[in-house]
Amino acid sequence: MKTVLKSADWEVIVSTEGPIVMIGEKINPTGRKRLATALQAGDFDYVRQQALQQVAAGAHVLDVNVSVPGLDEKRLLPEVVKFLTAHTRVPLCLDSNNPEALAAALQVTPGKPLVNSVSGEEGKLRDILPVVKDRGAAVIGLTMDNNGIPPDAEARLAIAGRIIERAAKAGIPAEDVIIDPLVLSVGADQKAAAVTLKTIELVRREFGVNINLGASNVSFGLPDRQTINQAFLALAFGAGASCVITDAEKLAGTVLASDLLLGRDPYGKRYLSHVRRQQVSAAGGGKA
Amino acid sequence: MKTVLKSADWEVIVSTEGPIVMIGEKINPTGRKRLATALQAGDFDYVRQQALQQVAAGAHVLDVNVSVPGLDEKRLLPEVVKFLTAHTRVPLCLDSNNPEALAAALQVTPGKPLVNSVSGEEGKLRDILPVVKDRGAAVIGLTMDNNGIPPDAEARLAIAGRIIERAAKAGIPAEDVIIDPLVLSVGADQKAAAVTLKTIELVRREFGVNINLGASNVSFGLPDRQTINQAFLALAFGAGASCVITDAEKLAGTVLASDLLLGRDPYGKRYLSHVRRQQVSAAGGGKA
Repeated sequence: MKTVLKSADWEVIVSTEGPIVMIGEKINPTGRKRLATALQAGDFDYVRQQALQQVAAGAHVLDVNVSVPGLDEKRLLPEVVKFLTAHTRVPLCLDSNNPEALAAALQVTPGKPLVNSVSGEEGKLRDILPVVKDRGAAVIGLTMDNNGIPPDAEARLAIAGRIIERAAKAGIPAEDVIIDPLVLSVGADQKAAAVTLKTIELVRREFGVNINLGASNVSFGLPDRQTINQAFLALAFGAGASCVITDAEKLAGTVLASDLLLGRDPYGKRYLSHVRRQQVSAAGGGKA
Repeated sequence: MKTVLKSADWEVIVSTEGPIVMIGEKINPTGRKRLATALQAGDFDYVRQQALQQVAAGAHVLDVNVSVPGLDEKRLLPEVVKFLTAHTRVPLCLDSNNPEALAAALQVTPGKPLVNSVSGEEGKLRDILPVVKDRGAAVIGLTMDNNGIPPDAEARLAIAGRIIERAAKAGIPAEDVIIDPLVLSVGADQKAAAVTLKTIELVRREFGVNINLGASNVSFGLPDRQTINQAFLALAFGAGASCVITDAEKLAGTVLASDLLLGRDPYGKRYLSHVRRQQVSAAGGGKA
């Protein structure tokens, strides 16, 4: 199944057959004080720098989240979207809990963006789906509902089914719904990643839709997070995830190596190009 | 299914339910000139150093290969086995193409060693299985035969079946046969790893036996091998491999992170202990 995302002049296809699509996670002030401060000051230079770094590192899409306590997301999200549209050409993933901010930002986003996110919560389904439909966007569906995140894969599968069904009723086809099975830290719950991996398999088998992961949570609170995140991404891609919200600077190598190992990178061209760009960049070539 | 390996006073269980068993690969002179030179000179100090490093890094078993052109393996393999038995307490994996060397080494190995390896080749089945049976050892079965390594998973599955059947006829139970589905470099063949991953799934489903991988081949000839090897190991464990011949110093973190992510490391105890030992070692604590 294919989810087509577009900017004004660029197209990215998220496909269950791969290759994996990376959504750069760093335009998100949660836990990033410098970005929060820059957004508060209306200083978008830092936003631009982060965006360009993620794209240079391999991000195909940029997540855009400007949720800082005290700031007016409904005003700020469209503003940052317009700014990024002027400075990059990748499609955007509009990331907000605020339906009004999403609606306002969708009005000024060219192409076909991704909305992050709806869930099985009744209020979300009611508020977000019409906005996504009106704009002809695609949407990420989180497998949680008014009772929270279910501890087992079968219940997450059921929520995925409800989201896909409600989206269809709202006029959004299944190919424009990307399910995110959610992952919590294995530091807090040893079964957390295993449940997520099983959910990926079940959702892929049952609905055949694209699967996204916000993968960094998995290692929260643990040492050597990079090793855990790398192993988790490979496990998730093996289970059937086709899309990941991640720090491309840290994890593009693992994403591209996984595509190569899953037989989706003829002659290793994409992997080899990536390594060469990294070498040029490490040698200071990026500054010339 | 469980394969029990033993030294004189230590037991290691390879289980399809995990945790994953690491067989340290570095006592093998192929591509390791310094080890080859040491073996030629009869200088076992370097052998001991490599063995202790692999065990300190997390290897549960040590592969022992002393195949150097011009050296008498039938004399040398038992000698190195005796030496390692005196200096380490992990079970050994006797690695040789020479049935006489294996038979001689098995005579002096305490406990219950692993033999690396038999294959579907008629001569191997005929020569190796009786030796393994006589000693009550376990054996690795490579999915290749007189026609070489099949390019597809179904044919490798069929060879695995023949090895398990012939082992049974020789009196070796399936639990003492660990199948190695073999991996070639994805640099030479883009489908190489995908075929191996599929073979793992098929063999696990069909025969339920333990699966071993010699994982380093996969990245041969490619840059940034570590990233590829890490991703491949996680994919292989996700597919069902339970045992790996690898450089524990480089890949123990990925092995332990994979166990943690697959829900086999309650409270992350093993992963956290590993990271702490690494930190102590990096701080020079190993030298105190």
